[in-house]
Amino acid sequence: MDKDSLSELLRDVQSGKVTVSEAVEAFRGLPFEDIGDAVVDHHRQLRRGFPEVIMGQGKTAEQVISIVRSMAEKGENVLITRLEANRMNPIQKVFPDIQYYPRSRTATLVKKPVKIKGKGTILVLTAGTTDIPVAEEAMVTAQMMGNEVEMICDVGVAGIHRLLHHREKIMRAHVLIVVAGMEGALPSVVGGLVSRPVIAVPTSTGYGTSFQGVAALLAMLNACAGGVAVVNIDNGFGAGYIASLINQP
Amino acid sequence: MDKDSLSELLRDVQSGKVTVSEAVEAFRGLPFEDIGDAVVDHHRQLRRGFPEVIMGQGKTAEQVISIVRSMAEKGENVLITRLEANRMNPIQKVFPDIQYYPRSRTATLVKKPVKIKGKGTILVLTAGTTDIPVAEEAMVTAQMMGNEVEMICDVGVAGIHRLLHHREKIMRAHVLIVVAGMEGALPSVVGGLVSRPVIAVPTSTGYGTSFQGVAALLAMLNACAGGVAVVNIDNGFGAGYIASLINQP
Amino acid sequence: MDKDSLSELLRDVQSGKVTVSEAVEAFRGLPFEDIGDAVVDHHRQLRRGFPEVIMGQGKTAEQVISIVRSMAEKGENVLITRLEANRMNPIQKVFPDIQYYPRSRTATLVKKPVKIKGKGTILVLTAGTTDIPVAEEAMVTAQMMGNEVEMICDVGVAGIHRLLHHREKIMRAHVLIVVAGMEGALPSVVGGLVSRPVIAVPTSTGYGTSFQGVAALLAMLNACAGGVAVVNIDNGFGAGYIASLINQP
Amino acid sequence: MDKDSLSELLRDVQSGKVTVSEAVEAFRGLPFEDIGDAVVDHHRQLRRGFPEVIMGQGKTAEQVISIVRSMAEKGENVLITRLEANRMNPIQKVFPDIQYYPRSRTATLVKKPVKIKGKGTILVLTAGTTDIPVAEEAMVTAQMMGNEVEMICDVGVAGIHRLLHHREKIMRAHVLIVVAGMEGALPSVVGGLVSRPVIAVPTSTGYGTSFQGVAALLAMLNACAGGVAVVNIDNGFGAGYIASLINQP
Amino acid sequence: MDKDSLSELLRDVQSGKVTVSEAVEAFRGLPFEDIGDAVVDHHRQLRRGFPEVIMGQGKTAEQVISIVRSMAEKGENVLITRLEANRMNPIQKVFPDIQYYPRSRTATLVKKPVKIKGKGTILVLTAGTTDIPVAEEAMVTAQMMGNEVEMICDVGVAGIHRLLHHREKIMRAHVLIVVAGMEGALPSVVGGLVSRPVIAVPTSTGYGTSFQGVAALLAMLNACAGGVAVVNIDNGFGAGYIASLINQP
Amino acid sequence: MDKDSLSELLRDVQSGKVTVSEAVEAFRGLPFEDIGDAVVDHHRQLRRGFPEVIMGQGKTAEQVISIVRSMAEKGENVLITRLEANRMNPIQKVFPDIQYYPRSRTATLVKKPVKIKGKGTILVLTAGTTDIPVAEEAMVTAQMMGNEVEMICDVGVAGIHRLLHHREKIMRAHVLIVVAGMEGALPSVVGGLVSRPVIAVPTSTGYGTSFQGVAALLAMLNACAGGVAVVNIDNGFGAGYIASLINQP
Amino acid sequence: MDKDSLSELLRDVQSGKVTVSEAVEAFRGLPFEDIGDAVVDHHRQLRRGFPEVIMGQGKTAEQVISIVRSMAEKGENVLITRLEANRMNPIQKVFPDIQYYPRSRTATLVKKPVKIKGKGTILVLTAGTTDIPVAEEAMVTAQMMGNEVEMICDVGVAGIHRLLHHREKIMRAHVLIVVAGMEGALPSVVGGLVSRPVIAVPTSTGYGTSFQGVAALLAMLNACAGGVAVVNIDNGFGAGYIASLINQP
Amino acid sequence: MDKDSLSELLRDVQSGKVTVSEAVEAFRGLPFEDIGDAVVDHHRQLRRGFPEVIMGQGKTAEQVISIVRSMAEKGENVLITRLEANRMNPIQKVFPDIQYYPRSRTATLVKKPVKIKGKGTILVLTAGTTDIPVAEEAMVTAQMMGNEVEMICDVGVAGIHRLLHHREKIMRAHVLIVVAGMEGALPSVVGGLVSRPVIAVPTSTGYGTSFQGVAALLAMLNACAGGVAVVNIDNGFGAGYIASLINQP
Repeated sequence: MDKDSLSELLRDVQSGKVTVSEAVEAFRGLPFEDIGDAVVDHHRQLRRGFPEVIMGQGKTAEQVISIVRSMAEKGENVLITRLEANRMNPIQKVFPDIQYYPRSRTATLVKKPVKIKGKGTILVLTAGTTDIPVAEEAMVTAQMMGNEVEMICDVGVAGIHRLLHHREKIMRAHVLIVVAGMEGALPSVVGGLVSRPVIAVPTSTGYGTSFQGVAALLAMLNACAGGVAVVNIDNGFGAGYIASLINQP
Repeated sequence: MDKDSLSELLRDVQSGKVTVSEAVEAFRGLPFEDIGDAVVDHHRQLRRGFPEVIMGQGKTAEQVISIVRSMAEKGENVLITRLEANRMNPIQKVFPDIQYYPRSRTATLVKKPVKIKGKGTILVLTAGTTDIPVAEEAMVTAQMMGNEVEMICDVGVAGIHRLLHHREKIMRAHVLIVVAGMEGALPSVVGGLVSRPVIAVPTSTGYGTSFQGVAALLAMLNACAGGVAVVNIDNGFGAGYIASLINQP
Repeated sequence: MDKDSLSELLRDVQSGKVTVSEAVEAFRGLPFEDIGDAVVDHHRQLRRGFPEVIMGQGKTAEQVISIVRSMAEKGENVLITRLEANRMNPIQKVFPDIQYYPRSRTATLVKKPVKIKGKGTILVLTAGTTDIPVAEEAMVTAQMMGNEVEMICDVGVAGIHRLLHHREKIMRAHVLIVVAGMEGALPSVVGGLVSRPVIAVPTSTGYGTSFQGVAALLAMLNACAGGVAVVNIDNGFGAGYIASLINQP
Repeated sequence: MDKDSLSELLRDVQSGKVTVSEAVEAFRGLPFEDIGDAVVDHHRQLRRGFPEVIMGQGKTAEQVISIVRSMAEKGENVLITRLEANRMNPIQKVFPDIQYYPRSRTATLVKKPVKIKGKGTILVLTAGTTDIPVAEEAMVTAQMMGNEVEMICDVGVAGIHRLLHHREKIMRAHVLIVVAGMEGALPSVVGGLVSRPVIAVPTSTGYGTSFQGVAALLAMLNACAGGVAVVNIDNGFGAGYIASLINQP
Repeated sequence: MDKDSLSELLRDVQSGKVTVSEAVEAFRGLPFEDIGDAVVDHHRQLRRGFPEVIMGQGKTAEQVISIVRSMAEKGENVLITRLEANRMNPIQKVFPDIQYYPRSRTATLVKKPVKIKGKGTILVLTAGTTDIPVAEEAMVTAQMMGNEVEMICDVGVAGIHRLLHHREKIMRAHVLIVVAGMEGALPSVVGGLVSRPVIAVPTSTGYGTSFQGVAALLAMLNACAGGVAVVNIDNGFGAGYIASLINQP
Repeated sequence: MDKDSLSELLRDVQSGKVTVSEAVEAFRGLPFEDIGDAVVDHHRQLRRGFPEVIMGQGKTAEQVISIVRSMAEKGENVLITRLEANRMNPIQKVFPDIQYYPRSRTATLVKKPVKIKGKGTILVLTAGTTDIPVAEEAMVTAQMMGNEVEMICDVGVAGIHRLLHHREKIMRAHVLIVVAGMEGALPSVVGGLVSRPVIAVPTSTGYGTSFQGVAALLAMLNACAGGVAVVNIDNGFGAGYIASLINQP
Repeated sequence: MDKDSLSELLRDVQSGKVTVSEAVEAFRGLPFEDIGDAVVDHHRQLRRGFPEVIMGQGKTAEQVISIVRSMAEKGENVLITRLEANRMNPIQKVFPDIQYYPRSRTATLVKKPVKIKGKGTILVLTAGTTDIPVAEEAMVTAQMMGNEVEMICDVGVAGIHRLLHHREKIMRAHVLIVVAGMEGALPSVVGGLVSRPVIAVPTSTGYGTSFQGVAALLAMLNACAGGVAVVNIDNGFGAGYIASLINQP
Repeated sequence: MDKDSLSELLRDVQSGKVTVSEAVEAFRGLPFEDIGDAVVDHHRQLRRGFPEVIMGQGKTAEQVISIVRSMAEKGENVLITRLEANRMNPIQKVFPDIQYYPRSRTATLVKKPVKIKGKGTILVLTAGTTDIPVAEEAMVTAQMMGNEVEMICDVGVAGIHRLLHHREKIMRAHVLIVVAGMEGALPSVVGGLVSRPVIAVPTSTGYGTSFQGVAALLAMLNACAGGVAVVNIDNGFGAGYIASLINQP
């Protein structure tokens, strides 16, 4: 039942064509999907300012182009995650302004400048250099969602002084994203240094008993420091997304 | 927004107190929970004839009594699952008509006779005698939901002739519930004999690498016979429930 | 054949009413393996109208052609699952009428029109677009087995209004196949909306802790809604098959 | 090197007893633990207003009393988690003002009124009634950390209308804690309704393939809705703690 | 019974050589379930000399007594496994001749002397003293099935000379049962010393990463020595049983 | 200490060059490796008649040729397992008599005719056609070790009559090797039909929750039929090897 | 073949009673167990100074007393691990000098003073207070094996300054034993601070996804710091033992 | 705060420009990273003589060249692990002296001769030939860290005499590295022969239930012999590293 048919029904009530109890019956069956759609619009509104997001994995260059085009036409900023480099050539022919981050396989198309709305800095920390791709996905996501983001790499716990060297930045951040593979110990240490929320991202870095990130995930879920919550393995996007929600005023 | 306030709003439209567009706005914000409730009622209607179900696990005798009382007052039949025997004494003092099945820790209170509505027979098969408690939970559930139920026990695949001995009953059943622990092979064999849906229930029977039913579960999910679907380990209730839905006319 | 009818038959042999070769024929339908074969025939009978099914995985184009040929010669409809696209070229040269569904890697050869025998509609729902290949396998299977099938895609629980938008179709379906990867939550929601059996199919969609469908599988086995049973990960064929059995009159 | 010895060294520099280069050498070896302690103090400062927290599990009543006493003497509020009811008797004799929450086995001692500092409401949702103990631990934690907390129970996804009924409260919350066992689907649905961070808490509720909360954990890590992060199984305290950090101004 | 012998029998019926009731009897040994039963009898025959076996786990003393009585009346030897000591008192009152092995919780009732039929010695080896209960179950089983059994305990691989000390007995055995928990390495070493079949039994001995016998099980399945096959964790009975079958002439 | 130096030492004792107590000391330090070597020889003797076995996996054609050559020169029969087809070309150039079994990637070189020494028939059964490669590895192994081997394929439990059709062969076999993937139920059924040892081989056939053979492995370890022992997933060689040991006179 | 019979044989060679080649034959069959025993003695010698160790788990007080007595009579020091407190009463009646450590359930009986032989200090660190029982088992073991041992507790990584406070002791230690449950991160940090070997001991401390120490174990196996090796979960004894071997001169 | 600014501050104290209490405040905020750096230098010192290590995995030839160059310029020896052979060509063009070990994919560049500093021999043992790559990584690592290293291959426990043949070398070694896949039993046997520390390295050798080294890992963690600690699967470098630390004087 869209707005038009609702108006019509109400006009019929107004005119006496339909009795009140008939109308009540009609409303009983009123499909809530329409209200659902209203929710969507309202929702969209709330989320205005966020980019549209495309999961690039498993999509052909043509499919990506088609989706980007429909978004770009509405003037929306676009964020594409997990987009293989070998698909960028045809895409960039159509959208020369698109920017590609090869390490994280992320692409962005900025149709209107991203306004910084976040309350503070989101700081992305990585334990090793192999964690950078996932960290970059988090960083780009958070930047596209209107946040100041800083990144400090390779400050894993086996060289604790390297981490402590950045103590000031760490303690000043409003939200922290900590990306680590192997033993995944960094969020515990960082969580013990700060009084701000820490989003931990396990990565599939490692071999043998790292079990493609499971070791790091378990470590993070068991972090003895308070203030740590975890997202899926390699889910840089998810970390950037919730960090942005946390950083909203 | 309940029926009364809806009627009132419509009457205001009818009387001209509220314009159509004002009413449209009012409806846009119409919380769909109320429609949700309507769904519930409608839903309930569809399900009429099914008993109310109480999960007894983790409830005190007093809690169970209180819930049963409110249901019994409406004249509903009641099915209680996973109810420890040591709680039956106080419950039976209040509801002397309640019937308890100690093997499956199931209890039933029949306020109005259960009418057989199922199209055919639901046949419950068990691989071993230790699977009977779970099978009984399935049987009582299906009976309370208005089905003719038969049970054949201890026809595991290691004595294939015992199973084949019941071939006729097996091929006549409308829905089959196959309950097995250990290697969980019975559903594969039964599924190969019949052209009717088989609901497989793994049980936590066994030791060592049975891993409390995981071995049986995996076997059932990998059943090479068509027509087999699986419920949770020891979930006799769930099997009886979906078998009843399948057996509905 | 019980003792009485056996005695009668033997007496007829004794009296000459029945010749030895007639009796041999009568017995062919009896003893062990022969009875087994009889079962098959009878079985076949019961299943008449179902297509012959070939598991394409691990078979060469030549092997598939040879099996299809022997079936096609008997005038049977044929359903081939998990058939890689790169094998279709030689196959279609021999059987130009064969139809290939590339997303689900399914092929069908219809020698006699499929008659709709199912009592109601089988509705296939998918949580995301990446679940469509598995859903399509279920759909094609159920169609080839004589059912009206509808499919609604991309109605995952993270946008609950999209699902509720289709409430009417959902509540009208006779059997529901719900296909979901990642967190596998859709069957729980759908199972709570309907009073008909739900066959849940986990898919290997996702990454990290989705563990190739295990996360979805566990969620489905633990669905708190009644009326849900589960098949193997990515087993669209199995879901379509049991849904068809359930939908048989 | 504590403050006194540092002052002394500096006074020696001032008086010329120690040369600058001698002092530089002395500082090179300056054990950073003392600075570490300074950090702690500073840290403590930042965290002022948070209660002291005692993990009750594995502690005798005497041990708990002794720790509470030292804290209470400093006028600190105290939060005790996982404290078995059978230890409360001797504890309450010493601290009659202590309040015990038996469902969540949580105790609080309020020495100075908790000031509401959180920016908005923290909303705790549970899928079932068996999830309430964990939810209550989260609620009490967040309350003791200075937040307005609301709790809505038993709004699991199998009865989606029950959840939607509370849509307004859900959309108004500043942070959401979603507690669920079994299939753990609630965070996905809630995450799809709101634009605020969702902290998901899997519970060990369930049986069989729930694997003491692992099924729910995996579902939550794979939540297809954005804005969801996860804590350890049954970790209500951790969820309340990070939600409080997020809710800080 | 093939077509020829069937025809012949029928012709004999026709000619009167064989009466109808004789033929009925002949056929009793044929059709489906009856053949099944015949199999059983034949089967029993083959197995004559083997004891009847009762799985004591989960059975009350009364249930055990009742089953033992029916067996004992037929003069059968009886083997009861996994029978808790606290059930022996009432059982021994009824059957004073019953012998109980408390370590392995096994009981035997010998109604007719067990005749040694095995071709050679079955040698049971244990890695540690904690593996003895499982080994004893294997030993008693094999003895009751008519084998000479020897047992050597505590010859784990960490003291390889202790094992080699028994080299002669080891190389003389006809079948070897090797029982080990923890790292389960003994079957690999023994398998490398002998040219006879080795049945490996993992035990749930150990802690931590022994995972109740899984570590030992995996080691045994991966034994680099040829001639090793494995039974379920703690399944001494199963090992004794298959070793007896192997040792049959 | 080899035979020569031992003789020399003894001669020195004989001649008086070395006193008895000096010689005792010399023997105390006698490295048992030499005795070890003696064991090997003795061992080899016991095993005479068995072929030399080469694990082809991970070896280049050149490496295989070199090993085969050294064996062939001694007149030994050779069995090569897991040898990729693409290595056969150069190998067959050198050894034109080598026979290759492409399905199981097994090769044999028979330098002296294999004498049948086994007491009875080893029967290899497979549940499906995809299990044949593993079954063939078992068959070739057992044949090369001097056994009569029969193979029956595609008699999985979903078509129980197909299995029962071969009942006679099954009951006549001296040792049975049962090869199955997916739900791995066949050994349970076979074990229930026979009184001879059954060696169960899980295969990695299947998908999803078959977990590359783990589902089948668990089913086989939990086989409720007695007389079943299990080897590693896809370990056809191991099954053929232990079956041969069992079948030795 | 013991020393006496060896001497006799040699004397026979000397006297000519036995020829050299007869003696060679005799030696070929020389059972190496005797040499094995020689190894043991030699071995024992090497290990002299180490206490005798009894695994108390699963032993009755009587069994422990009997073993201790036989050891004490030889004047050996005795170390008993995993000895439940409730067995100490009767044991201490017999051996009043025995010392019991209730936290770690360890007991020691010192018959001759333990001489410090270790080259340096073994430092035991624990992440939390709940790890102390396992740490104490390591400490007592290392002390009984002749080492100076120090223990620092509750220096987990969530309060990194607490750890750094002890930097000097940490860097001075010759071997480090690091005991941690939950996320098991401490060995990574400690391994990064020192140039000495670190033995990591995961403990079963924690709940939910700690999986009884598996999370900590995986973290430790994946420690990005060099110089870390791991023992079984809760294996304080094993850690103390290998640390002692490392610390031997 | 570097040395210069510290000197300046102290000079200001000396000159009276800054009061003692002002200076104390300044020190309170003194960033400990600088001290951290001091630690590093000190640390480096301690570790002098060890090579610089590069993890080659995931690095391009160019990246490796650039890192090697900066190290070589300082005259440091360089060890590169997990370097694919196909990257060696360009690297060797720049550094012709670099040595590559293809089996273990290890490379070394020796700028100053490696001095043997280790106290004794490090002995590397492998169970099979397929374990050699991992063993070689351990060997090269230990050699580059200044140790005498010996390697004995293919002495797995299924041929125990082959191992015992090397008893003397085994008992003389100062540290042992034992590398094994499949059932991982070798460390248990070796640990039982020696009184020196054993570092066990599981390898991913095997198939089926070896689970890429998990079976071997579990066996090693459960080794019943004392004195065994374990590193990650295939972590030859880690084993060589800790063995070197143990072997330091």
